[in-house]
Amino acid sequence: MHRVKVRVVEDALDANNTIARANRDDFDRHDVAVVNLMSAPGAGKTALLERVLGELGDVRAGVLEGDVEGSYDADRLASLHVPVTQLNTGNGFGGECHLDANMVRSALPALPLADIDLLIIENVGNLVCPAEFRVGEDARVMVCSVTEGEDKPLKYPLMFRACELVVINKIDLLPHLDFDVDRLLHNLDAVHPGVESMLVSARTGEGVDAFREWLASLPARVPA
Amino acid sequence: MHRVKVRVVEDALDANNTIARANRDDFDRHDVAVVNLMSAPGAGKTALLERVLGELGDVRAGVLEGDVEGSYDADRLASLHVPVTQLNTGNGFGGECHLDANMVRSALPALPLADIDLLIIENVGNLVCPAEFRVGEDARVMVCSVTEGEDKPLKYPLMFRACELVVINKIDLLPHLDFDVDRLLHNLDAVHPGVESMLVSARTGEGVDAFREWLASLPARVPA
Repeated sequence: MHRVKVRVVEDALDANNTIARANRDDFDRHDVAVVNLMSAPGAGKTALLERVLGELGDVRAGVLEGDVEGSYDADRLASLHVPVTQLNTGNGFGGECHLDANMVRSALPALPLADIDLLIIENVGNLVCPAEFRVGEDARVMVCSVTEGEDKPLKYPLMFRACELVVINKIDLLPHLDFDVDRLLHNLDAVHPGVESMLVSARTGEGVDAFREWLASLPARVPA
Repeated sequence: MHRVKVRVVEDALDANNTIARANRDDFDRHDVAVVNLMSAPGAGKTALLERVLGELGDVRAGVLEGDVEGSYDADRLASLHVPVTQLNTGNGFGGECHLDANMVRSALPALPLADIDLLIIENVGNLVCPAEFRVGEDARVMVCSVTEGEDKPLKYPLMFRACELVVINKIDLLPHLDFDVDRLLHNLDAVHPGVESMLVSARTGEGVDAFREWLASLPARVPA
């Protein structure tokens, strides 16, 4: 039975990759660089976007907000005057715990691809399944909060391996935690040697410039 | 296509419930009360168990540790001299983001059911799918950390609705956060009116007595 299940999962991932490539083609046609932004619930993805979206210089950004239900994060971002499109997995997608290529594809007609250079897809908060489904992105970024403990790369290695950048958030809380940043970096290096990481606080703004520059320079770094 | 998908999901949940009832029968036969403990990654499930497991009085507890891979939490609990059994979803279960009844059933032969009164099943850290799969438990408890933000009941309502007790953890950090406990409780009440909740800090021990008493009294509260 497990072998059948693994086969079904593999078929689903194959189908997903095919649709992800179709998304990729559409993004390329419009010269849009795409980031898949992932994290555990409450790690601060939206708070980080609130910090950077309004200050990306010439880069015109848009956001695709993935949530099981509701539009709480999209509402928070609305004041930043960037186009935000809501995608709910609870609306026709069985309340899935992640975005997949087909869900993103269903949202393409609502995205202003001709008017943006950078699309940030904010995934559902979850450290497991989002890492398994490519959606047509150029880069995968995960936000990891220091309140979650140093062991997370070891417990959710697929997520930490899947991304090109790990943003370590909430460093303003470090004085109040029993948290060893070096141990987190050591664990991160064990599962994803050499991956880029940065320390930030979305709350105080510390370190956020580096993330802003990383995002703003992505369209130029992505081969046309 | 979505209707077919919903049907497949419903069939899977039906099958899960059938197996959950078989688990339930086995737990009843051994007079074991069972808690399904859920949370986002890093909310502090294991830290809470470290605080209470050694001090449950006459109640003999055991733990079934659910993780995608590794045995980091089980290793932490080993020093408490309670039986701990590891269940990895990455081992024959496709790396699932939750425990289901069949996975728990596969672990039953390894559980010392004749020697315990209370089984705590620590689920995979995830606020979506664990809430969909009963595993044969008497009660579902979720741990919600104040570092995750007050909006989580609204964004993950199924999880907050599914549980009989919400343990609000990391209250030692409240002085350092922009977090309004009343707003969290208001949001919790909106999705699950009247659900029991308690404020604790696994780090300092504040409020943990109430959780310990809740656990210790569960076997007497569960009808035989």
